[in-house]
Amino acid sequence: VQDFTSRVQAIRWQNDRLLLLDQRLLPAEERYLELSTAPEVAEAIHNMTVRGAPAIGIAAAYAVVLSAAQHLANGKQGQAALQRDIEVLRASRPTAINLHWALARMLQVLAAGPADLVAALQAEAVRIHREDREANYRMAELGAALLPQDAVVLTHCNTGALATGGYGTALGVIRKAHADKKLKQVYATETRPWLQGARLTAWELEQDRIPVSLLVEGAAASLMQTLKVDWVIVGADRIAANGDVANKIGTYALAVAAKYHGVKVMVVAPSSTFDLQTASAAGIPIEHRAVEEITRIISPAQGYKNVGGWNPVFDVTPAGLIDAIVSERGIVHAPLAGRLAAIAG
Amino acid sequence: VQDFTSRVQAIRWQNDRLLLLDQRLLPAEERYLELSTAPEVAEAIHNMTVRGAPAIGIAAAYAVVLSAAQHLANGKQGQAALQRDIEVLRASRPTAINLHWALARMLQVLAAGPADLVAALQAEAVRIHREDREANYRMAELGAALLPQDAVVLTHCNTGALATGGYGTALGVIRKAHADKKLKQVYATETRPWLQGARLTAWELEQDRIPVSLLVEGAAASLMQTLKVDWVIVGADRIAANGDVANKIGTYALAVAAKYHGVKVMVVAPSSTFDLQTASAAGIPIEHRAVEEITRIISPAQGYKNVGGWNPVFDVTPAGLIDAIVSERGIVHAPLAGRLAAIAG
Repeated sequence: VQDFTSRVQAIRWQNDRLLLLDQRLLPAEERYLELSTAPEVAEAIHNMTVRGAPAIGIAAAYAVVLSAAQHLANGKQGQAALQRDIEVLRASRPTAINLHWALARMLQVLAAGPADLVAALQAEAVRIHREDREANYRMAELGAALLPQDAVVLTHCNTGALATGGYGTALGVIRKAHADKKLKQVYATETRPWLQGARLTAWELEQDRIPVSLLVEGAAASLMQTLKVDWVIVGADRIAANGDVANKIGTYALAVAAKYHGVKVMVVAPSSTFDLQTASAAGIPIEHRAVEEITRIISPAQGYKNVGGWNPVFDVTPAGLIDAIVSERGIVHAPLAGRLAAIAG
Repeated sequence: VQDFTSRVQAIRWQNDRLLLLDQRLLPAEERYLELSTAPEVAEAIHNMTVRGAPAIGIAAAYAVVLSAAQHLANGKQGQAALQRDIEVLRASRPTAINLHWALARMLQVLAAGPADLVAALQAEAVRIHREDREANYRMAELGAALLPQDAVVLTHCNTGALATGGYGTALGVIRKAHADKKLKQVYATETRPWLQGARLTAWELEQDRIPVSLLVEGAAASLMQTLKVDWVIVGADRIAANGDVANKIGTYALAVAAKYHGVKVMVVAPSSTFDLQTASAAGIPIEHRAVEEITRIISPAQGYKNVGGWNPVFDVTPAGLIDAIVSERGIVHAPLAGRLAAIAG
């Protein structure tokens, strides 16, 4: 497919090593880190070298390959080391469910016990990676079809090639709509505190020559008030059985503002993001990160002594504020309740 | 009054010079700029050395004193120079009305033509400054009385001693409630793109030993969803006759989220902020600043070539989303329509 590409490929498997584009350095510097052990990958997930729910899952799958190659020749001790690595990976970030999903797929291969286990695990990781890209593109087609001609859309955080196997979820829909000449304007929130919108989405879209306008999160409601916005399009880190969506902090505020202004809300996420074991948002663990991500305006030595912070990384958008969830298996339209299981497979 | 003080005094008139705390450098550095001409003050207003609607008005009043002292000995030419300075001051920032109000007061003194004009202008500027502090304190008493015991409040931008004659509007209410031991918790948005919350409000409250927790704007709706928030308390840059409020970008988003969660919204602003000549928000000019305030993530030389931005500095909160406007002349409760004129004087 002609437009099934982005110049940006943040995860590469090369010569039995995992290469990760260090997303903490973008857009100032484009540097790949070469990782050769699972704990290194877990740390890269934890410290946001790689981020985005699907990308985390893919990186974790490759990490299992690294661990198996390192340890499995080592008998029972090696088996135990591999299990420990998998637990370290599982704990690297709590909210995105794709991590658990990818590890479960790798564990199935392990359990099947094929002759060349490392080769089989590598094949499975490559398959997870490729299937994610394919799912991205299918979602992009489905989501773009929901947009009107000359659509004005608002997106949040980074859900593009950097956050996935290489095309994007919400940003994949935007990429496809741009290729189909259906887009009038893309607005992207800068997405504090890590600035994934300003640092990553803007960089990625500039790489692929897709125009974008940045705004601060505080301006999003005002944008809806003063200009016509057709859709808010976001990704997801975990979707509960009832359709509640955990996603980057700020998503809920956009959904509330969208509801107030009659703007539609589309969540784009592969079925690996669905967590049907969890009934509603109440069961989703929300990661909080260090308050210094917000309070460290100056050097630590000079910094505030008595200023606190509230720094959840994700929030929960109740199903009732969402108009459509787009997955590679189809679209679930509102009301979402009871309709997710049918396409979760 | 015991607690009618802040350690922070951003505007000082000393030896016929205007000293302004350079708010662009806070919290890293506490440096006062000494200004001796009106165009210097206009530039300081424009480049945000001094900001906050009441503080801008006070600085402009002192600037007229500087201009009169410089030019008025110079006959007709001097008169013209003074008029030019006043126009430059008037154009320094478009949204806050206090600037126009303060200049109008200075022009009245000029028109009255007292014997020692410079002395009379200086007396008027000092009066404007002092009256603003007094109005702050009166508003603080009125606003704090609206809060429940153990109040949890959320504020935006900086509306404290730095933004006013020396106590604060919204932050004055919070200061007073803290002194009265009515506050359980203060949350402050970091306020992108200039980070007035993280740089100024946090700094100012730390100076005065008032505890505060910072959050990103994107987290404010989530805060209301997950914790009990009693009041959103904000200032204003201009209030139209119908009660529509122009204030720092992000205020409207907070008000929409507050409405959705049943959280009350208090606007605290001196009567100098009222613009009864302007019927509604539609008549309020909204300043947009350079998009580089958002897009310049890296050095200009390396920066984005094709990334745009949408960077309004203010937004408009319709009267219908506001529960109370607190001025030094009293409180106007919702519904605001038709009730503002009675206290505007």
